[in-house]
Formats: sequence, structure tokens, C-alpha cells
Amino acid sequence: MNEQSGIKPYVIGLDLGGTNSVFGIVDARGDIKATTAIKTGGYDKVEDYVKASVDALQPIIEQVGGIEKIKAMGIGAPNANYYSGTIEFAPNLPWAHDGIVPLGKMFSDALGIPVAMTNDANAAAIGEMVYGVARGMKNFIVITLGTGVGSGIVVNGQLLYGHDGFAGELGHVTMVRGAEGRSCGCGRTGCLEAYCSATGVARTARELLSKTDRPSILREMNPEDITSLDVSIAAGKGDELAKEIYEFTGKMLGEACADFAAFSSPEAFIFFGGMVKAGDLIMEPIKKAYNEHVLKIFQNKAQFLVSGLDGASAAVLGASAIGWEV
Amino acid sequence: MNEQSGIKPYVIGLDLGGTNSVFGIVDARGDIKATTAIKTGGYDKVEDYVKASVDALQPIIEQVGGIEKIKAMGIGAPNANYYSGTIEFAPNLPWAHDGIVPLGKMFSDALGIPVAMTNDANAAAIGEMVYGVARGMKNFIVITLGTGVGSGIVVNGQLLYGHDGFAGELGHVTMVRGAEGRSCGCGRTGCLEAYCSATGVARTARELLSKTDRPSILREMNPEDITSLDVSIAAGKGDELAKEIYEFTGKMLGEACADFAAFSSPEAFIFFGGMVKAGDLIMEPIKKAYNEHVLKIFQNKAQFLVSGLDGASAAVLGASAIGWEV
Repeated sequence: MNEQSGIKPYVIGLDLGGTNSVFGIVDARGDIKATTAIKTGGYDKVEDYVKASVDALQPIIEQVGGIEKIKAMGIGAPNANYYSGTIEFAPNLPWAHDGIVPLGKMFSDALGIPVAMTNDANAAAIGEMVYGVARGMKNFIVITLGTGVGSGIVVNGQLLYGHDGFAGELGHVTMVRGAEGRSCGCGRTGCLEAYCSATGVARTARELLSKTDRPSILREMNPEDITSLDVSIAAGKGDELAKEIYEFTGKMLGEACADFAAFSSPEAFIFFGGMVKAGDLIMEPIKKAYNEHVLKIFQNKAQFLVSGLDGASAAVLGASAIGWEV
Repeated sequence: MNEQSGIKPYVIGLDLGGTNSVFGIVDARGDIKATTAIKTGGYDKVEDYVKASVDALQPIIEQVGGIEKIKAMGIGAPNANYYSGTIEFAPNLPWAHDGIVPLGKMFSDALGIPVAMTNDANAAAIGEMVYGVARGMKNFIVITLGTGVGSGIVVNGQLLYGHDGFAGELGHVTMVRGAEGRSCGCGRTGCLEAYCSATGVARTARELLSKTDRPSILREMNPEDITSLDVSIAAGKGDELAKEIYEFTGKMLGEACADFAAFSSPEAFIFFGGMVKAGDLIMEPIKKAYNEHVLKIFQNKAQFLVSGLDGASAAVLGASAIGWEV
């Protein structure tokens, strides 16, 4: 680290997810010195979201010695534009659903430090490359399975940003074409995210429960209350219907990865997020479907890995890494 | 150019397509000094293909002053591995259908010069970047519509090769999932190539003619003899069925490009190959379907361009550009 970062030894990393916004103050070695969090969705206006964030940050900033110790802030957020520092038409954010929000500038004005931002999944990919299972890899794809499905694509050791900064929206490739495709938060139908996000998995559960009368411990719940975690717990207990839900989800992810291989031929697919805690229940169907559907030249080449980092930390570290580059 | 290329002022470019193999001897400014061609498919064994190639090359090599004037050879070929100089499991090449063929080394041994190779579509992308409509662009995708459907993907000004050299096989993303997908030359079903290659277009024509009794001048032909060129000519004469075939083809390409945008967010999609001579008949349905299906953040951003270079020359020039880098 240079002299300046010696004077300002910390960056703030913000993992801005559809549900939670997790902040961490990180030093140059990647140690997280302090964290705080707020709910992402509890605000209609972005001004209120930024104010609540700054209020939450204040005590942990003081804890490390004040804002003069902070070099910059890095944000990983859905639909974030790396080039312009804006969030654009993010379907899962009530305060950035219908327009272009200059979140980077707003945080910079509020905190008085430079702010850089990227896609939350891109931040996770940087986290994996610097601290996780992608160390030493130059071509890999991180797929985040959370409220939505996101992706961070690394080619030749660099994040793929594309012409406008929005590359890597693999949650919105179309998996089911035509009228039978599920509606997606993006306003279209049939997206990977509509099936393989945590909410997609819960939806699959409700569909299977209502369309069949097969037994399942999930029937003990109010269908509207079922989450992907409930499905995971039920599957862990051997519930056949719950296992089938993960097989369906994994099969679709594996088929999607087969198409992604035809695009960038990665060394590894790395899965990230709460849903991967289901382990082999989800990973085995992914690998099986991938090898069944992928072009012959790619069969049995790519690794399928689970993020080795704690979910929140990896994303915060990834976001903070963007901050060092400001 | 350095002193050595002053002594050896030419490279050989080979555009190895599913139907024709076109050779050009190219100077450092991109002028094609001499050309020759053979049929690609007329040989069961790769040894015979290489021998026929060298026989065809001999007169044009003499024409420029002999092999000592040639620095290297660059090959653009389907399923070519940039890293190893091999062609692997190329569905449209009878002498490379089932295995790994070290074509680079074979040409190098036969001619006594270094040989480099890449995907034929990657070669076309380099041709467009150096001499064509992609000059100055850093993020674009070339889609070649020929015997097959190929692609060359440029990100950050570099060709995307991926971990094993095989990235950019966009003709083999799955567009129609499940049992109703058309069989593809790659051994799988539902690939973009099975619908949008020249042979895919002819197949669409045969299907529409046999499934309906709608009038069309294509009915004057033996269905098995119909080619995409016939469909193009019929559409140009106002034949409604032929126009519908192009609309179907363009719609599928546009939907595929919508998925590709979610991957690499290119500045432009550039279409290349005989089929794009149909002009607006194919390009308008592509653009329409793209904007209807693409994620909101990408709508009306990307350009849809037709290659400005003569088809054979662009591919030969692209292949030759690989030769200079040996």
C-alpha cells in the first residue's frame, strides 16, 4: 500500500442486496474491522436509504478513528453501473425500480469520500478471486443465488463489464420461452432468476404442492410462508418432494451453465449465496444437467465449486476491493 | 513491420469453412495478393485434405516469390483450438468429426512455416476489428451465418478464448428445450445453429411447406433442393411464405442476442455470411425481437450491423492477422 493508504488505512465495503445492506470497514489485508447493516427494502426514496445508511455507518466509522481514516467506499449492488456510479432499473430495489439513481455520488456527497460501485455479483467475483476459491483463476463465472440470481464473469483475469458496464446479468437469460414462462421481477418472462432464485425455489414449492397431492412435510406450512430455507430443511430430512424441487432447480441451473460455457468457456462455475448451503442436493443436479446438455468439447472440463467464503464477508470484501482502486 | 517481415512480407490466411476452404496470400497492409480454394468436405482423412490444400497453394506461393517470402500461416476454422493448434470434434468437418486433429502442426510440417489457428468466427471478428465495421470498438459480437452458426466475441478489445480456447460457440446455445428441439450437427438438440444456419433456414422452409398448403413459389422446387439462397430470392420477389421463414429465423436470432447482451453487453452485433445478403428481411426481425426480449437496461443500445467486408476476404484477412502474431 502507498503512503496515502497508510494515512487512510481503511475502505468501506457495502454489499447491497435485495434484502439486506451489509457494511464493513476493511483494512488493506482484507480484515473486516467493523460491520453494520440495514434493511435494503424499507425505503421508498433513495434519499432515505442513504440517510439510514450513513446513520448506521457513523458509529463504526468512529470506532476505527473517524472518516479521515477512510480512503474510499466500494459498493456491490444489483444493476450497478461501474462506469457511471449509478443503479439503473433494479427490479428488486423499491427506490431504484423505475429509473437511474446516482447512488455513488449520493454516498460520496454524504460521506465526503470517493465512491466506486459495481454489480453485487461482480463484487462477489472479485472477493472469490482475491480471497476465495477462484485464487489463481483467469476465467470463471460466479453465480449468486439469493433474492435474485446474479453473476460475475471473469475473462482473462478481468471482470467483464461490457460496453455500458452492465455485462453479467445471467439471471436474466431466458430459460422458458413463450407463454408458459414464469413472470420475472424484471418485467419479462421465463428468466433463470424466476426459477432459481430463493423466491423462485419457494414458488416451485408452491406450484408442486398445489398441482399434486403428494405427501410432504412442507404441507404443514402455510404455502405463502414457504421459503427456500424451508425447502432445504425439508430436503435435508429426506422429504422427496423437497428433493425434487432442488433437482428441478439444479437441472435448470446446469442447463443454463451449459449455455454459459458456449459463451466464455470458464475453468469453473462458483456458486454463492444462502441456497448453496443445500450442498449436494443442489450441486449434483447442476453437474449432471451440465454434462448432459453441454457441447461435447466442454464435457467434464469445468469445475463446479461452492464459495469458500462466508456469504456476507465475501461480498463486502469484494465491494471493498473496488474501493481501493478509486 | 520489423526487419524479418520485410524479408518475409506475406502470410497465408486460410478461411476453413464447412463447405469451402479459401486461401489468400496477404501482405502487411492487408492486401490480398493471390487466392485459391478447395472444397472442405471432399476428404475423409485429414492427410488428404492437407495434401490437396498444399497442392492448391503451390502455384500462388510461387506467384509471390516462393515459400521463403511467407512468414507464417493463420487458419480460421470451426472448433479450432487457439492454444493447441488443433481442431476438436467439429460436427461439420468429415475429417475432424470424431476426434482431435493437429491441423496446425500438419500444415506447419507440410509448408515449413509456423502456423496459428483460431475459430473461423474469431478470425472474422479480427477481420472486422482491423478492417471492417468494428474498427474502434472494444466490445462486440460477430455472428457468422453460414453452413453453421459461429461467433467471435470481443471484450475489452480482446478475443474471448476462455479457459481452453473454445469460448464463443454461440451457435450451440439451446433455443428450444426438450423433445421438440431440432437435432443439431453437434449431436444435441434445439441449438441456435439448427434453426438459423443456412441449412436451418432450408429446413424451416421444408417444414413450413409440408405442414401447410399455403402458396409459395418455393413449391415449384424439389423440397430437398431448397437452399437459404432460394428462400432469399423468393422473399425478394415478395413471396409471403419465404418472408415468414426469414421472420422466424430473425426472431430466434434476436432472442438469442438478447441473452448474449445479458452476458457481455456488447456495443454491436455484427452479422456475417451469405445469409445477411437478405438485408432487412433478416435484420429487421432480429432487431425487433431483440428489443422485445432484452432486459430493459439494454433496450435500444446495441447496434445491429452487417459486415462491411466481402465475406471470403474478411475471413481470410482475419485468419491472416493471426499469422502475423506467430
